[in-house]
Amino acid sequence: MNIPKTSNPRIVIIGGGFAGVALAKKLSKQEVQVVLLDRNNYHTFQPLLYQVSTGGLEPDSIAYPIRKILKDFPNFYFRLANVEEIDTVKNKVRTDIGHLKFDYLIVASGSTTNYFGNSEIEKHSMAMKTIPQSLDLRSLILENFEEALLTSDLNERNALMNFVIVGGGPTGVELAGALAEIKKGILPKDYPDLDTRMAQINLIQSSDCLLKGMSAKASEKAEDFLEKLGVIVWKNLRVTNYDGKTATTNTDLTFKTETLVWAAGVEGAVIKGLDSEYFVTRGNRILVNEFNQIKGFENIFAIGDIACLCTEEFPNGFPMMAQPAIQQGNQLGDNLLRLLEEKPMKPFVYKDKGTMATIGRNKAVVDLKNFKFQGVFAWFVWMFVHLFFLIGFRNRMVVFVNWLYNYVRFDREARLIIRPFKKRLKEN
Amino acid sequence: MNIPKTSNPRIVIIGGGFAGVALAKKLSKQEVQVVLLDRNNYHTFQPLLYQVSTGGLEPDSIAYPIRKILKDFPNFYFRLANVEEIDTVKNKVRTDIGHLKFDYLIVASGSTTNYFGNSEIEKHSMAMKTIPQSLDLRSLILENFEEALLTSDLNERNALMNFVIVGGGPTGVELAGALAEIKKGILPKDYPDLDTRMAQINLIQSSDCLLKGMSAKASEKAEDFLEKLGVIVWKNLRVTNYDGKTATTNTDLTFKTETLVWAAGVEGAVIKGLDSEYFVTRGNRILVNEFNQIKGFENIFAIGDIACLCTEEFPNGFPMMAQPAIQQGNQLGDNLLRLLEEKPMKPFVYKDKGTMATIGRNKAVVDLKNFKFQGVFAWFVWMFVHLFFLIGFRNRMVVFVNWLYNYVRFDREARLIIRPFKKRLKEN
Repeated sequence: MNIPKTSNPRIVIIGGGFAGVALAKKLSKQEVQVVLLDRNNYHTFQPLLYQVSTGGLEPDSIAYPIRKILKDFPNFYFRLANVEEIDTVKNKVRTDIGHLKFDYLIVASGSTTNYFGNSEIEKHSMAMKTIPQSLDLRSLILENFEEALLTSDLNERNALMNFVIVGGGPTGVELAGALAEIKKGILPKDYPDLDTRMAQINLIQSSDCLLKGMSAKASEKAEDFLEKLGVIVWKNLRVTNYDGKTATTNTDLTFKTETLVWAAGVEGAVIKGLDSEYFVTRGNRILVNEFNQIKGFENIFAIGDIACLCTEEFPNGFPMMAQPAIQQGNQLGDNLLRLLEEKPMKPFVYKDKGTMATIGRNKAVVDLKNFKFQGVFAWFVWMFVHLFFLIGFRNRMVVFVNWLYNYVRFDREARLIIRPFKKRLKEN
Repeated sequence: MNIPKTSNPRIVIIGGGFAGVALAKKLSKQEVQVVLLDRNNYHTFQPLLYQVSTGGLEPDSIAYPIRKILKDFPNFYFRLANVEEIDTVKNKVRTDIGHLKFDYLIVASGSTTNYFGNSEIEKHSMAMKTIPQSLDLRSLILENFEEALLTSDLNERNALMNFVIVGGGPTGVELAGALAEIKKGILPKDYPDLDTRMAQINLIQSSDCLLKGMSAKASEKAEDFLEKLGVIVWKNLRVTNYDGKTATTNTDLTFKTETLVWAAGVEGAVIKGLDSEYFVTRGNRILVNEFNQIKGFENIFAIGDIACLCTEEFPNGFPMMAQPAIQQGNQLGDNLLRLLEEKPMKPFVYKDKGTMATIGRNKAVVDLKNFKFQGVFAWFVWMFVHLFFLIGFRNRMVVFVNWLYNYVRFDREARLIIRPFKKRLKEN
């Protein structure tokens, strides 16, 4: 892999998400060598992927070159690599570009879509965990409308304009809201020769409330907002299969749809060699102690979505979101330095900064520790927080310009089919 | 195709480029039915594609949804379609989504890369005529640098960092300049562990001057600017083949390179049914009279790159650029309306608004009719003109923010490998 050997300990980080990047930053300018491996050369700001799918933002403005984040750190090496296996005995990782020895290894490989073993759903549904996936969904949505124009078969046209989103967490709720706004604000203008009132947005949640991790008030209000926008919310309903045409459920209900978005769950992106039952727990996450150390290892850690750090308040680990990831990355950075100085590490303490979700224009829900609010103000808070956490001044400016424009003009201009998805599928 | 029959004459336009869009706008709100067919749902601002390839702009900001351009026109229909054949006898077009009858047909299908019959070059080189092509080139450039880091074979590393651009027209010159700026300003920061001084940018021109259509002064100055930026300019040299590893020339010279960009020529994108030798002339363009009417037809026209309108000043047709396309679109719009009112059409007169090319930061060349200038002022004029001609307020804002940022920070942040190109090639 052409990484020089130095006398400094080598810390290898797998994954340039929120956790990995936070950690790498902490280790900069220290007496260590940091190697970050990621299969992409960019960091993805996942909370805004749904806006890429719905044409509100360009993908480039929510991604950021990893090399640029860490360009001022002379002890830092990035490699574009897919880690295939971890050898915990010989302390090395095997990747598609070669082997690499480590002194310390930090697994920050994040999470991936959980299909709960259903390969039919996996094959036919759309996911929204990466930028290419989000762009594919954007293409598909637009391709469906173009196709709907061409058919005189009403059933087919309805299936093309029927969107089924499975999963009532933040991703599902935010996507449903954005699609509803497209239906209302953009479709009638773009497709005057199509009866776009027939477009349906179905949001399906298996339990009895949306936004499960949030307060009851937030959940109710989110549902209320969605219904006002015209989204059909289904609760206590589970999609059991989808063959590309029809989604079946655990009841008699079926949905004829050409677009099923699977946002029903995520699971840890475990890597071979660290997939032992001994420490991989529910949700495919790796069990770690309060220092994010993986059970049985002194020098191997896991942080972010992949890590399951169980506390009294969170007996199944922290929610798989940006905040715990960033905080664990920061904390582990400090701890590694302590470890190198032979000082005792400090246990991780999660500072809950609150959670929030946006449903649409002027509509968001925010839960802070002592203050829960919904509506216009929540929406502005949501925007401010997301702008603040985006990496890069240019990204913030571009996102801000887009949001301002979209707000004033009731528009979303990035509705481009750059790489057709359906067409590509058919050709393969 | 589900387009309603009305008593108004149906005008079918093939292609939503500069010419097609200008024409469609002219025909809006008239007593005609306008159907625009394009294989993309967006209009591409081709003059800025090289900035997409070099990470200076996001693709979404130089593309614009065609439906949105024409959303206020009740007589306008857009269909996402690839036109496969034109039936000039039955007055209909065959597309991948069905047949369509026309009363008037306007071919504005533009141009495509001309490989002069060399299928090896076509297979292995990169083109830059569409947004997906430009994104592929962006990926390839970045993938090459990532790969260069991994090899200790000096020849291989040099081939990965050797860029060969064939064609010294505006596209080649602008791309070479942008790559040189990346080499200077970004590579050393992004790849501190790579000797990026070894990166080479070769610009190869078959004749004895760059920017052939421009003044001698512009040509000289462009060459001077390029050389100051470190581009190696080759004149009177022709690339005869490229097998993906080595480019051979009409001399003893060969270039070992993993990236050959073919910007040596374009040709008309002629459609079956209108490909008769009777009116297809050099450069694969369709011969038209002064009303842009195709020889032998009353109701079939060609405008833009595909049309060859020969005048005394331009015996081989107008240059294949935005200005003649826009002006022909506008003029034909007026002429069609005159035709419908049974008034005589007016012949097309080209108003030369000048040509320009940018080489890099503060470096551009501008030829106006009575005033030719180069340097900083030319560069500002170039920027202003390109912002002005971009479609859409949001696009202008986003491009402006990017340019401002890039200028102040000597940066280009969209250096993301979203859809790896080399990896995709290998997998297929």
